[in-house]
Amino acid sequence: MPATRPGMTERKHRPMISLAELQRRIDAGEILPDAAVAQSLHAIDAHEKAIGAFVCRSENPRAADTGPLRGIAVGIKDIIDTAKLPTEMGSPIYKNHRPRADAAVVMMLKQAGATIVGKTTTTAFAANDPTATLNPCNHAHTPGGSSSGSAAAVAAGMIPLALGSQTGGSVIRPASFCGIAAIKPSFHLLPKVGVKCFSWTLDTVGLFAAHVKDLAHGLAAMTNRPELLLGAAITTPRIGVVMQEFAGEPEAAGAEAVRIAAAAAGRAGASVRALKLPEILAEAWRIHPTIQDFEAHQAFAWEYRENYDAMPPLLRCRLDESRDMTPAAYDAARAVAIRARAALAQVFEEVDILLTLSAAGAAPRGLSSTGDPRFNRLWTLMGNPCVNVPAFIAESGLPVGVQVIAGYGDDAKALTAARFVEEALARG
Amino acid sequence: MPATRPGMTERKHRPMISLAELQRRIDAGEILPDAAVAQSLHAIDAHEKAIGAFVCRSENPRAADTGPLRGIAVGIKDIIDTAKLPTEMGSPIYKNHRPRADAAVVMMLKQAGATIVGKTTTTAFAANDPTATLNPCNHAHTPGGSSSGSAAAVAAGMIPLALGSQTGGSVIRPASFCGIAAIKPSFHLLPKVGVKCFSWTLDTVGLFAAHVKDLAHGLAAMTNRPELLLGAAITTPRIGVVMQEFAGEPEAAGAEAVRIAAAAAGRAGASVRALKLPEILAEAWRIHPTIQDFEAHQAFAWEYRENYDAMPPLLRCRLDESRDMTPAAYDAARAVAIRARAALAQVFEEVDILLTLSAAGAAPRGLSSTGDPRFNRLWTLMGNPCVNVPAFIAESGLPVGVQVIAGYGDDAKALTAARFVEEALARG
Repeated sequence: MPATRPGMTERKHRPMISLAELQRRIDAGEILPDAAVAQSLHAIDAHEKAIGAFVCRSENPRAADTGPLRGIAVGIKDIIDTAKLPTEMGSPIYKNHRPRADAAVVMMLKQAGATIVGKTTTTAFAANDPTATLNPCNHAHTPGGSSSGSAAAVAAGMIPLALGSQTGGSVIRPASFCGIAAIKPSFHLLPKVGVKCFSWTLDTVGLFAAHVKDLAHGLAAMTNRPELLLGAAITTPRIGVVMQEFAGEPEAAGAEAVRIAAAAAGRAGASVRALKLPEILAEAWRIHPTIQDFEAHQAFAWEYRENYDAMPPLLRCRLDESRDMTPAAYDAARAVAIRARAALAQVFEEVDILLTLSAAGAAPRGLSSTGDPRFNRLWTLMGNPCVNVPAFIAESGLPVGVQVIAGYGDDAKALTAARFVEEALARG
Repeated sequence: MPATRPGMTERKHRPMISLAELQRRIDAGEILPDAAVAQSLHAIDAHEKAIGAFVCRSENPRAADTGPLRGIAVGIKDIIDTAKLPTEMGSPIYKNHRPRADAAVVMMLKQAGATIVGKTTTTAFAANDPTATLNPCNHAHTPGGSSSGSAAAVAAGMIPLALGSQTGGSVIRPASFCGIAAIKPSFHLLPKVGVKCFSWTLDTVGLFAAHVKDLAHGLAAMTNRPELLLGAAITTPRIGVVMQEFAGEPEAAGAEAVRIAAAAAGRAGASVRALKLPEILAEAWRIHPTIQDFEAHQAFAWEYRENYDAMPPLLRCRLDESRDMTPAAYDAARAVAIRARAALAQVFEEVDILLTLSAAGAAPRGLSSTGDPRFNRLWTLMGNPCVNVPAFIAESGLPVGVQVIAGYGDDAKALTAARFVEEALARG
């Protein structure tokens, strides 16, 4: 279906680098790892000036000789520690900050042979204050946030893989806005050691890549979990479509994305039905900000208390407004989250995956907002694996995605089902 | 009972500073906050040379004018980030390392008005390689670890409060060896942002103080949770005594501590009975190292992979031996932990608290080992609040404590019940 829609011409003007395809060519000896990295460096040189996805770049990055990700150039969101590159958190408070150690996820990439080519832009502290990064699909629009640079760099065809993180909707939403695949894996599948904390209950490291298969290859190599490599396809997944009414109305394009994806999946053999989530899930959606903001006050205590004037305005305002939140309110919110996770586990007794909105609609115009995470935040709190699959191209060449969500811990099924949806959409 | 036992004379030669009593005197205007801090600084000057509890000290620390912990001098384990003092993790790999920000728990202390007077010794990366710190009760013995300096500084009467952390038994065990009170609160009650990670499932920040009431005042002030302040005492707690047979035999002194504490509690009105834990708890005890080591490989990936020669030998050996651990083994261990937590919650339907060993026995002689965490590690994995209460003085002036454990999230009950046991022991 996307192939025949308006905007796909524009899409073809920005070919993306498929990690899995590049890996296959390297394994086959068709391209040397160093040449593969050089390809990305040239693509960055070609597009970076227009997009602004990078904060800094590695000097003379070289490819490794071994490892499943040799020759794969990766961008790292700039809230993730790197020993050899500054880590500035998108904020002048961390100007020229150079961590002693690499974050655990950076080491996972390096151990798998990947080449870190630079740090990608992030909204300050992965909150809401926008970066100057442009959406590669339409430069008049935001790429979304907070993982703005990682999404944009993959979407612009600069690199085949990038790391981001999500506390509200900072992985899935920019992936949807930029028309690429992304996974927010099950909570704790990827370690957060060396990742700047916003909320320890919510923060989740995620991956951006061109297609679902590329995510699977990247995540399998990082975690040494070959079961993520997408073996046998699901042939007749049971799909529950949820519109998250508690989160308010989506825009027309958001609803259309779900409709198109559900219809395509149905035609491809899935059993698709509308599903209403138990009320405790709506309650969990409502208390997400309580958990996020209570923990943010502790996580950002040094920045907020000792660098108040230099704090990013939107985040500072959020913290100002939540100053009086009580431990009792937080405890109550945590209890709701625990009950909601149990209820959601029951839902996955009835369906294989949930299909829902990745964002309210296409990327907003301008750079004053990175968009709204209201259709993401429940899933971040629940900890379930979520995959963004681009569903169609709306007006102005802007893509709109859908989220494929599996049960907690079942990242393999989330990826397999997301590929099913992706292929169903490709068939139209 | 302790007052009449051999060794108490020695104990009286090292009077400790009671946080609650100092707080009362400051509130009453009997001592100025600056004088209270100065008292600690003098005590450090007097004892530090013999004990070696500090890595570095603050320059001219001043007391705050406000806050419940004004005038309270605090020592911070040197794996916890401080913006104004180096944070060296007990390892030359972090020589002169100066974090940009204070850890969240340090900010909690500062916001409550406490004065950070220095960083306390830690075994390298809070693992097993000993420090040179001596046990204040008997200089020929280890103070335990990994929070060696924090336990020793409080026990030597240098400071009224210190922060430590526990992954196996690094808070409760040194408290037992040094004859002081300590709490390992419920997992996640205290944030770990800015605390060097060993295992994100296990690492728990804890407090050391002279007596249980002092812990309660410290923790209540840090967390803004007045319910921890020890209101009405429990009069007839239901106590289950568990000997953790799965962890092997304790030494005579360890068993004696439990016997003495149980008998004293019984005389004070508690209903005390022996309790055998469900088999899944034994299984959880067995898989603790799987979770710890699998996560340690990720948490210390940069140190281990890029600074192998400089790694502390015991930790490096542990990582060498667990290199081939599979994700599947880790996943299975996590599943056991989840089932065990549910089973343990059921146990707390029948009893208010569990009473068990804090360590196998008294502090080992010499500094070659910080002791064995085998009676602690289950409780770290379960996440329940644990309080060490000194039970009696064994030979050589060495104290031996017991652990009082409450249900997950019920830190107030853990403290109240620990005070009950402490008072029962004082009455003999």
